[in-house]
Amino acid sequence: MNGARSLVETLIASGVDTCFANPGTSEMHFVAALDQSAGIRCVLGLQENVVTGMADGYWRIAGKPACTLLHCGPGLGNGVTNLHNARRARSGIVNIVGDQATYHRPFDPPLTADTEGLARTVSAWVHVSTQAAQVGRDAAAAVQAARTYPGQVATLVLPADASWNEGGVVAAALPVPEPAPLDPHAVERAARVLRVHGGKVLLLLAGAAVQAEGQALAWRIASATGAKLMADFVNPKLARGRGRLQLERVPYKSELAIEALKPFDHLVLVNAKAPVGFFAYPNLPSIQYRSDAQVHVLSRPEQDAVEALRALADALDAPEAALPDPGPRPQAASGEPTSDKLAQTVAALMPEHAIVSDESVSYGRGFYKASHAAPPHDWLHLAGGAIGDGMPVATGAAIAAGGQRRVISLQADGSAMYTLQSLWTQARERLPVTTIVLNNRSYKILLGEYQGVGATPGPTAHRMLDLADPDLDWVRLAQGTGVDAARATSMDQCADLMRASFVRSGPFLIELMV
Amino acid sequence: MNGARSLVETLIASGVDTCFANPGTSEMHFVAALDQSAGIRCVLGLQENVVTGMADGYWRIAGKPACTLLHCGPGLGNGVTNLHNARRARSGIVNIVGDQATYHRPFDPPLTADTEGLARTVSAWVHVSTQAAQVGRDAAAAVQAARTYPGQVATLVLPADASWNEGGVVAAALPVPEPAPLDPHAVERAARVLRVHGGKVLLLLAGAAVQAEGQALAWRIASATGAKLMADFVNPKLARGRGRLQLERVPYKSELAIEALKPFDHLVLVNAKAPVGFFAYPNLPSIQYRSDAQVHVLSRPEQDAVEALRALADALDAPEAALPDPGPRPQAASGEPTSDKLAQTVAALMPEHAIVSDESVSYGRGFYKASHAAPPHDWLHLAGGAIGDGMPVATGAAIAAGGQRRVISLQADGSAMYTLQSLWTQARERLPVTTIVLNNRSYKILLGEYQGVGATPGPTAHRMLDLADPDLDWVRLAQGTGVDAARATSMDQCADLMRASFVRSGPFLIELMV
Repeated sequence: MNGARSLVETLIASGVDTCFANPGTSEMHFVAALDQSAGIRCVLGLQENVVTGMADGYWRIAGKPACTLLHCGPGLGNGVTNLHNARRARSGIVNIVGDQATYHRPFDPPLTADTEGLARTVSAWVHVSTQAAQVGRDAAAAVQAARTYPGQVATLVLPADASWNEGGVVAAALPVPEPAPLDPHAVERAARVLRVHGGKVLLLLAGAAVQAEGQALAWRIASATGAKLMADFVNPKLARGRGRLQLERVPYKSELAIEALKPFDHLVLVNAKAPVGFFAYPNLPSIQYRSDAQVHVLSRPEQDAVEALRALADALDAPEAALPDPGPRPQAASGEPTSDKLAQTVAALMPEHAIVSDESVSYGRGFYKASHAAPPHDWLHLAGGAIGDGMPVATGAAIAAGGQRRVISLQADGSAMYTLQSLWTQARERLPVTTIVLNNRSYKILLGEYQGVGATPGPTAHRMLDLADPDLDWVRLAQGTGVDAARATSMDQCADLMRASFVRSGPFLIELMV
Repeated sequence: MNGARSLVETLIASGVDTCFANPGTSEMHFVAALDQSAGIRCVLGLQENVVTGMADGYWRIAGKPACTLLHCGPGLGNGVTNLHNARRARSGIVNIVGDQATYHRPFDPPLTADTEGLARTVSAWVHVSTQAAQVGRDAAAAVQAARTYPGQVATLVLPADASWNEGGVVAAALPVPEPAPLDPHAVERAARVLRVHGGKVLLLLAGAAVQAEGQALAWRIASATGAKLMADFVNPKLARGRGRLQLERVPYKSELAIEALKPFDHLVLVNAKAPVGFFAYPNLPSIQYRSDAQVHVLSRPEQDAVEALRALADALDAPEAALPDPGPRPQAASGEPTSDKLAQTVAALMPEHAIVSDESVSYGRGFYKASHAAPPHDWLHLAGGAIGDGMPVATGAAIAAGGQRRVISLQADGSAMYTLQSLWTQARERLPVTTIVLNNRSYKILLGEYQGVGATPGPTAHRMLDLADPDLDWVRLAQGTGVDAARATSMDQCADLMRASFVRSGPFLIELMV
């Protein structure tokens, strides 16, 4: 068998069953091998940042890596920004990047680029597989790297001749590495801090700590000690709704974050990072917690947060504690659209076990409080700050859920334009995704930032921050990609469209004029 | 003044008058400085690969660099693939990449990435300007690097504090570096080869050699010696039409290129590279010329091709020679669309001094022969092979021409999807761009490549190479971005729409069903 075939068979043996792809000439033998072996679902994306973003969303829901198929350095380049986001989300992804044949590369034909250099900027693991006989072994290592706790980007570069040459050998799956062991001293230290300082301690949660089991353990600890709980601002996935914690994230805006963190003498980090500003500002400190606060690390991202919380709860002899009741589920709102009303309406109408992919940027900062009383759902955030991840993540999440969960994709107009090609894949794969584009016709977040510079935008600045002239028409854009769509100018219309879309089998887009 | 202001003033002093931008928070002081200083036209692109591609197109027509404004490593990442194309086109571009403040970067907030690592994969010059006092000096050096013959990608990374801190100093423009000196021995050697082997010599032209003056000199040499002339396959810009040479490029397909180059015992390269396959194939050699042919370098890309050709013509005492008459201008075609008929119709209808941005991929390989008798025009090709450059290049070229030249953007449906956000910028800037999307509902080039593997696509492969299900509707997509559009199913309709669009002041899109 050739190298390509050994690659496909090894991926299947290692548990990879989905390939997000935008292939080119140098990948044709891999495509042919996918044709020959059953067991991998191939999903085409019409631009590579859609492809890599889908793989990110897939991991967050499936909890196992998909592979991508990318064409040479430039194909990887198109997808590199959502790999940045995936790296920040700690998503496991196996990138397969086809490239020039080993003997052809020295001639430097036009598509030749620094593929490894590009890959290294976003990958924890990079390898070039130069011989057919080694492709299988390298593919198994790539999957292992991607599954290294909590998840990593692994990139395997595959020169065309390693793909087409005979001599391929299928490799067995390699063991999934265990999380790094806990530090018992860290558990003891955290327990002591909590016992002594109780109400002045913030337990800052991230990773597995904000899934259902981690939340329940954190609540036990908080109930026993008076500590407060908060989630890191950057959270690729939070378990939310009834039966989950009424958890808020550290606010995005540094002024608000500093205010929120001011009461705490101690921060105990559970797989979280100590809160710092997304950006620096001349008049604000980099860190958002008090400079005299003490920071303790219970567990690092490569350790198991649930195990750490359990050890801590045990060390504190914290009894079981029922999660507080969030009260009645809100009703759908009516009248003029506002951020609060949208949050309320989404909470009112979302089906059970929905997945929310949230790239609503400035409009959606206060979405959480309304959805405590919604049915249980998962909330996916943009983790790396680079807009254009939300729609691909929604698409990949829907694939991972096998079409069995409704995905609600909350999009700002500016970010939606980055990867609108995602809609076509949603249509092709008949995915149950309801996209709500919040059309405010501006980079609203930047208008705020500009004012932070201490000036009102003049005509030049205004035209760089404003998305009007011409107005984007999201209904036509969606229809152009094969996705049915409609415009809503009131919450009543929006609610009606949401209800109707939630019982469709395929995608739908609502353009909400805000 | 702050660093940002010194940057803007230095760019203006160095002759930069256009900024293609997609700013973010870390660039707000630069945006504010653009507001304060007159002299730079700012053009917003809704995704960074549009931004960098526009800068590429701008250089090709203006012959001087624009700057880009990109947001952190991930913003650069989104634009890195069209920077690859620009690098291959040898376009001069000054990238300004705003980044985390120097003191904030160690905290590793989410958008932090390996900005320099990304920049190095595509830039000839990379520098991080860490102090306000040095920003002006560094900006002048960046422009000088971009203008280094024949043109280079230069990337200046600007941490936010270098931008907002006081102490900025405006720097004077640095001299534009001269092309590398010619090698007189190379001229003598080429003259000797031409004298002795005449008709068995191919003069392979690229860069300035395929502009009007270079073509006239090459024709003198060919007429005097019997040598044949051909253009490199990769040509960012060719002067074409009446009064220019009836030049063909080395064919894309290796089989055809090998056939076309078979007659030649000698290749004389004029800023061109020795022809090699775009990709390797198991049954074909990497090089496309005969293995016993001798390759001679008259001039390298960093040398002045026109000067080299003039020296060669003089060494050969080649007399003036009138360019052959291309015959009558073709008429617009009618009936079923075909590639030949489209070429004929474009040639029949294009206004004087039009600019053609050609990313028609598989459909457009034979477009040249019809347009020899068209009015003089410039033809811009995808130079780096990474699809998604054509529409941004068309947009940037229209900006460079100050709205005075009609731009005809020939697009394949697959490549058009990569950077369709370009259309919005065309609408906002009221650019005279006529886009013709050749909707064949497939990655046609890849269907051909797949057959080269020796198999017919099975269902898996078919779904990765096919763009139907659902069909893209380019009329709606264009309208969604604010660009008027219509569909043509016959050449008659297409010709009517072209005629009507050529007298509009703004953009128009024709979806040609092929």
